Amino acid sequence: MALTLWRDARLVTLAGDTGWGLIEHGALLADGDTIAWAGPEAELPAGLAPEAEHRLGGALVTPGLIDGHTHLVYGGDRAREFELRLQGASYEDIARAGGGIRSTVAATRAADEPALFAAALPRARALAADGVTTLEIKSGYGLELEAEARCLRVARRLGAETGLTVRTSFLGLHALPPEHEGRADDYVTAAIGWLPALHAQGLVDAVDAFCETIAFTPAQVERFFAAARTLGLPVKLHAEQLSDQGGAALAARHGALSCDHLEWLSPAGVRAMAAAGSVAMLLPGAFYCLRETKLPPLAALREAGVPVALATDHNPGTSPILSPTLVMNQACTLFRMTPEEALRGFTVNAARALGLAERGRLVAGQRADLAVWDLGHPAELAYWIGRAPCRGTVLGGIAR
Amino acid sequence: MALTLWRDARLVTLAGDTGWGLIEHGALLADGDTIAWAGPEAELPAGLAPEAEHRLGGALVTPGLIDGHTHLVYGGDRAREFELRLQGASYEDIARAGGGIRSTVAATRAADEPALFAAALPRARALAADGVTTLEIKSGYGLELEAEARCLRVARRLGAETGLTVRTSFLGLHALPPEHEGRADDYVTAAIGWLPALHAQGLVDAVDAFCETIAFTPAQVERFFAAARTLGLPVKLHAEQLSDQGGAALAARHGALSCDHLEWLSPAGVRAMAAAGSVAMLLPGAFYCLRETKLPPLAALREAGVPVALATDHNPGTSPILSPTLVMNQACTLFRMTPEEALRGFTVNAARALGLAERGRLVAGQRADLAVWDLGHPAELAYWIGRAPCRGTVLGGIAR
Ligand SMILES: [Zn+2]
Ligand SMILES: [Zn+2]
Repeated sequence: MALTLWRDARLVTLAGDTGWGLIEHGALLADGDTIAWAGPEAELPAGLAPEAEHRLGGALVTPGLIDGHTHLVYGGDRAREFELRLQGASYEDIARAGGGIRSTVAATRAADEPALFAAALPRARALAADGVTTLEIKSGYGLELEAEARCLRVARRLGAETGLTVRTSFLGLHALPPEHEGRADDYVTAAIGWLPALHAQGLVDAVDAFCETIAFTPAQVERFFAAARTLGLPVKLHAEQLSDQGGAALAARHGALSCDHLEWLSPAGVRAMAAAGSVAMLLPGAFYCLRETKLPPLAALREAGVPVALATDHNPGTSPILSPTLVMNQACTLFRMTPEEALRGFTVNAARALGLAERGRLVAGQRADLAVWDLGHPAELAYWIGRAPCRGTVLGGIAR
Repeated sequence: MALTLWRDARLVTLAGDTGWGLIEHGALLADGDTIAWAGPEAELPAGLAPEAEHRLGGALVTPGLIDGHTHLVYGGDRAREFELRLQGASYEDIARAGGGIRSTVAATRAADEPALFAAALPRARALAADGVTTLEIKSGYGLELEAEARCLRVARRLGAETGLTVRTSFLGLHALPPEHEGRADDYVTAAIGWLPALHAQGLVDAVDAFCETIAFTPAQVERFFAAARTLGLPVKLHAEQLSDQGGAALAARHGALSCDHLEWLSPAGVRAMAAAGSVAMLLPGAFYCLRETKLPPLAALREAGVPVALATDHNPGTSPILSPTLVMNQACTLFRMTPEEALRGFTVNAARALGLAERGRLVAGQRADLAVWDLGHPAELAYWIGRAPCRGTVLGGIAR
């Protein structure tokens, strides 16, 4: 394989369990798509003959960011609804005007695959421009077999055309589609029925659901998760965002990769997640957009040793955010996470939440996914707001 | 002068007192640096022979954004302090570690003019990349004559080298410098003494102060403003951010261009501002960073007809923000302003706050400062978060 060398970098390796793992005057060697060596430039192994060599002029290099929770593929947007609400429209007014999640479902169902791809591509590029090299994309605005499959195919194609690693989640239980109004259990049965076909087409890396009073009950989620596990698919859950439904403990019983949101997570939920090794995926963007006041139990998560990840939760209704560095700032400002926790949340802990062990750190053996920043110190990643400090990314050893 | 034509645009003219003033399939003609005509392309005057013609493919065009309150020129940053605080350090710990505003004063005093310029230039460019064509820059981290003059010269040079219109404010009463500890009145006398020299050098477009328990008293501000008005300089004030000091009413008595922050503004303050025609400059970025809960009295300002402007308040301590579109979103999300109010806050009302009557709208006679956006509807300016939708700007008729 081809050797590529980056030198004159300030490497933020995150090599240990705590600390930045900062290497001043660092160098990083990739062998094909994998990191072969990272360390102080003065200790570079002798006799290397890299095919390409890049001098970074002292720029900061972190692992490529991993956005582990997005709803990136959808039709339309909700800007008009955003405006109506701020003009004083009630939720009833907005529903009458065709707003809410059902408007996104209708627009998504009405869009063909090229249209969905064309709409999502600039969003994926915006994330990449802010340092993202891996992202998760959920379905959940189709809510019928063909529309869900279409969204998941678009997600796969986004990965193929951008070079970004894309992990898909079938969020079959996102909302109740209008044609199942009053028949939620029947809808759950239908969604369970779609799972083998979607899985057989290679469209599903994990299965997700929204457990909430306004969405699906724990019993419905349980049934969905049981079907997923029969197929050997890992699960994750939108849990405890607006109330404590015991969703995190339920998901943990199924060995969930992650439980996401978690503002109302109980001590029992924390214990269950710690025991199962599930990642806590906090989503400060949605917290900000919804002007929530109930904070996720960060101290309890830290104490229990639950890894904390962060994500944009990009979606048109409650988090139209396309900047992970802004979410890092929100995590620090609103949740009082440290800048180091924020970066770990978008790298090593997000990798774990996606079941990707081989990325999120700058150490030998990991994938050569890098983000290069015009910054002096890694704390600046979370400190500046709206600065766009990313100079570029490297995907599997290839500069973008 | 040279005629330049932009066509196939969706013009957000803000021509009237309310509404977007949206013109679909619009065209805009500049004669040199001034808008000569704006309207539906179908109604373009016949017989034009523009020297340059740009087709915008249906892109949205707004007036160039005006960031009317920034502290853009300073030495160092406060990322380390941000991190220390999130690691649990007390304010005393941080003061001992040299943090707080005094650390920025020390770093600013220690920096020469080229260093201050080199640090501020990428910040100005970040604002410009998000649609800014005019900005205000305050001094206030020098707090001694030569250092204040240096910062104001850097502000002027930023304008000259970027083409952005820069308005300067001498923020002499920002904080008490360490050498005047316990002698605030003497410091105010000193700052008043610097004013004629700074004014004579053409460095001062307006005079600003920070009226707060942790800064300067109304009596001290009064003395400073009286000196400014003797020189014919307009005033503005950081007022009612953390408590009600009656600062807005004081500033209004001096015909203030704007009163800024205003979370604690009283009904009497609203009335005084309305009577004086002062603009309310709201700064949601600082509100967000400080996790404030007391909202500025938006309903009362609307009712009294006080124009509301918005700004980034870019500064290294309490608002390290470089994105006006993000501030628009914060104004909507946190203050419940409408997207149209948010855009007016960064255009026509901000122009008024800077005493610049001839910009902020897309109508004949105004300066041809434009921002071009990859968006479908102007409400999207405030809706997307961290998207970077600006395609480019036009400064006085010249595309950048
Ligand atoms: Zn979600
Ligand atoms: Zn300020």
